[in-house]
Amino acid sequence: MTSKTQFDEDKVLTGLRVKISRAVRDVRKSKPLAPSITNSVTINFVANAQLAAGGAAAMVYLPDEGECMADAAPAFYINMGTLLPIYEETLPRTASRLMEAGKPWVLDPVGIGIGSLRTKLLSGFKKTPPAIIRCNASEAIALARLWELDSNSSSAGPNGVESTDDVMSSVPSAIALARFTHGAVAVSGAEDFVTDGQISLWSQGGSPLMEKITGAGCSLGGVCAVYVAVVDPFTAAAAATQHYNAAARRAEEAVNAPGTFQTRFLDELSIASPADIAGNPCRLIYMGE
Amino acid sequence: MTSKTQFDEDKVLTGLRVKISRAVRDVRKSKPLAPSITNSVTINFVANAQLAAGGAAAMVYLPDEGECMADAAPAFYINMGTLLPIYEETLPRTASRLMEAGKPWVLDPVGIGIGSLRTKLLSGFKKTPPAIIRCNASEAIALARLWELDSNSSSAGPNGVESTDDVMSSVPSAIALARFTHGAVAVSGAEDFVTDGQISLWSQGGSPLMEKITGAGCSLGGVCAVYVAVVDPFTAAAAATQHYNAAARRAEEAVNAPGTFQTRFLDELSIASPADIAGNPCRLIYMGE
Amino acid sequence: MTSKTQFDEDKVLTGLRVKISRAVRDVRKSKPLAPSITNSVTINFVANAQLAAGGAAAMVYLPDEGECMADAAPAFYINMGTLLPIYEETLPRTASRLMEAGKPWVLDPVGIGIGSLRTKLLSGFKKTPPAIIRCNASEAIALARLWELDSNSSSAGPNGVESTDDVMSSVPSAIALARFTHGAVAVSGAEDFVTDGQISLWSQGGSPLMEKITGAGCSLGGVCAVYVAVVDPFTAAAAATQHYNAAARRAEEAVNAPGTFQTRFLDELSIASPADIAGNPCRLIYMGE
Repeated sequence: MTSKTQFDEDKVLTGLRVKISRAVRDVRKSKPLAPSITNSVTINFVANAQLAAGGAAAMVYLPDEGECMADAAPAFYINMGTLLPIYEETLPRTASRLMEAGKPWVLDPVGIGIGSLRTKLLSGFKKTPPAIIRCNASEAIALARLWELDSNSSSAGPNGVESTDDVMSSVPSAIALARFTHGAVAVSGAEDFVTDGQISLWSQGGSPLMEKITGAGCSLGGVCAVYVAVVDPFTAAAAATQHYNAAARRAEEAVNAPGTFQTRFLDELSIASPADIAGNPCRLIYMGE
Repeated sequence: MTSKTQFDEDKVLTGLRVKISRAVRDVRKSKPLAPSITNSVTINFVANAQLAAGGAAAMVYLPDEGECMADAAPAFYINMGTLLPIYEETLPRTASRLMEAGKPWVLDPVGIGIGSLRTKLLSGFKKTPPAIIRCNASEAIALARLWELDSNSSSAGPNGVESTDDVMSSVPSAIALARFTHGAVAVSGAEDFVTDGQISLWSQGGSPLMEKITGAGCSLGGVCAVYVAVVDPFTAAAAATQHYNAAARRAEEAVNAPGTFQTRFLDELSIASPADIAGNPCRLIYMGE
Repeated sequence: MTSKTQFDEDKVLTGLRVKISRAVRDVRKSKPLAPSITNSVTINFVANAQLAAGGAAAMVYLPDEGECMADAAPAFYINMGTLLPIYEETLPRTASRLMEAGKPWVLDPVGIGIGSLRTKLLSGFKKTPPAIIRCNASEAIALARLWELDSNSSSAGPNGVESTDDVMSSVPSAIALARFTHGAVAVSGAEDFVTDGQISLWSQGGSPLMEKITGAGCSLGGVCAVYVAVVDPFTAAAAATQHYNAAARRAEEAVNAPGTFQTRFLDELSIASPADIAGNPCRLIYMGE
């Protein structure tokens, strides 16, 4: 493990950019299937974003279908929005099957705190942890607290599905979650934070219009799942985040209102080159122990 | 209460425009959360329209989640499309919680007449009435009949989710519903009718292309819920309707086919100024007793 | 029945183009309601495509609502994506009601092979067969095998919802399915194949971008249901397929990325003339016994 004094940001960042660039090409070549159990609000946008990023999509609700898709695919995406009663069976069985097979999956703990089933399911995932957690700042803080990893943060909790905290205040929670899962955590905000618990990336770009369309975060989780089918969790979360920020910035240069922005954003996801994505403005920080 | 002889349309309309203009600014400033239990066909469009209008969105299906969101938010939206079995519990519990808390909610009785659960649930809402009913003409007539408020109208009933009646023929039903709920009713059509049972607004503008995209009515209900978080039901229904008609007319000036119209309509919802919305062509009629 | 030696492609194709052209006009005039039980991923796109093609849409989930809509409408669409537990009752009851009434319906067997409920339901449809099966090549092969109509094809089966076979390799399965149902089968691919078991149409045009958006196939099934409300299954499947290929080609001439392509495709569906649709490049082959 690198110690703080040995950390050379330029060198590590250059290496990360090479890995991201390769991951983008690998996704577009192999078109990995990343099935989802995801909310009905943004399910179409998740699928279209996964296709635009170069992957393939399939969505299911039933327990044995979750297991079947876990068997068939190299990675998976579980988003906690709009829970249905059957999810009480579907989500734990799917997560268990993924863990048994050693396959990476992405969790979006959206709506954490709303209702008893969500709390029960999210608590249970501590035993079958995801490779990547994609969330907003309030969700990161709430999940770290639910898993009893971080009791120091102060947060009012999410307001529905909206964050009431800024990304910086969620950094300790995000690091605690990443160290616990031995995976990566991606916290979305004005500047996005991605960490594996040691190395952290702040990814810039993006657009304020991402807040004006529903599903920016949900679909980023789906694209994280596409990337984690071909590369390690930290690189996957970094690649998906950089991909989103590069595409959103380009879309915003072309249009200035949410309807056309959403369609243009899908275009830019599809068009962005490996160099555009890997080269998106960002900085690395060493936060190791 | 104003009597008919005292009614001064210009004065009352000027006052309404001032209140609408203020409501638009208040929504954009406070970004009120208006959660929904709504159909899966247009759920994404509802959320995006709520965001474009300046509010915030969150959708749920489960009983305790409906109650939780009713506790957390200043207003709520219930749309009867694509009912799920769990709604038999979710909808009455959510509506009861809203009534206990004195919080306004918006009902879209879409599909009234289809299936036994829908009839049972819509009948039940007579005891926990919404602040705003947003519907088409056939639905207004059918709901007034179901609640035994108006037995004189003749209507063949809706054809699936489409109206078979014109707005004018639903006026007595709409007024009866508004007087019963002590709220507002907004009937969508070529010209839209909004009433509190005494004062009625005919709102013009809009576009025939609104009929060529799915969810124009559903999403208008969602935007009514955003507005009723900050203002009284009649002003809220009027503001949302005026907002839609101003945005749809502007979108139609720019494009002439349904795909690009839908994206452009979201743009115009977001861009329309308080003056555009308040000043949208309309007329007021006094229909008090 | 025409024998192979008597088959005059030019004459039959001219007759088909006349029937397609008339079907397009009939749909736009009568706006037929084609209700759906369909997946949540693409449900909005299905509804918008049905509206853009000139029909009307309504979606339900519950058993008595499926029966109610089967009673109310001239045609129906069942798509097997994202099954819910209640479908175990809803789908057989709806299909039985449609068969009793002699009403045509369209089946999309998407996801065939995933989970036990899907297999059970698809097996059951052999007794209440659809008028049109709209699928990809791997799904055609898998359904013919499930119904024990064709044991010779070799196929690895679908990969999730994606075909792993080319259209040509599914031709024997498609013909066997069409002969069994006395209806039509439409297999989507680079070139689309539509057959009634005797006469087969290869429809050209379309766009590779149709693969980059989710729901191209699902929504085509919905538009087949709109057409089969006004014309025989083979003409309906041919009209819908030609309509899609004409619109997709035109959309691709205007834009080159998936987000704007999807909105433009809906525009072109709405704009395409009867002559554009009937005249879309295609060829006919006689494959009778």
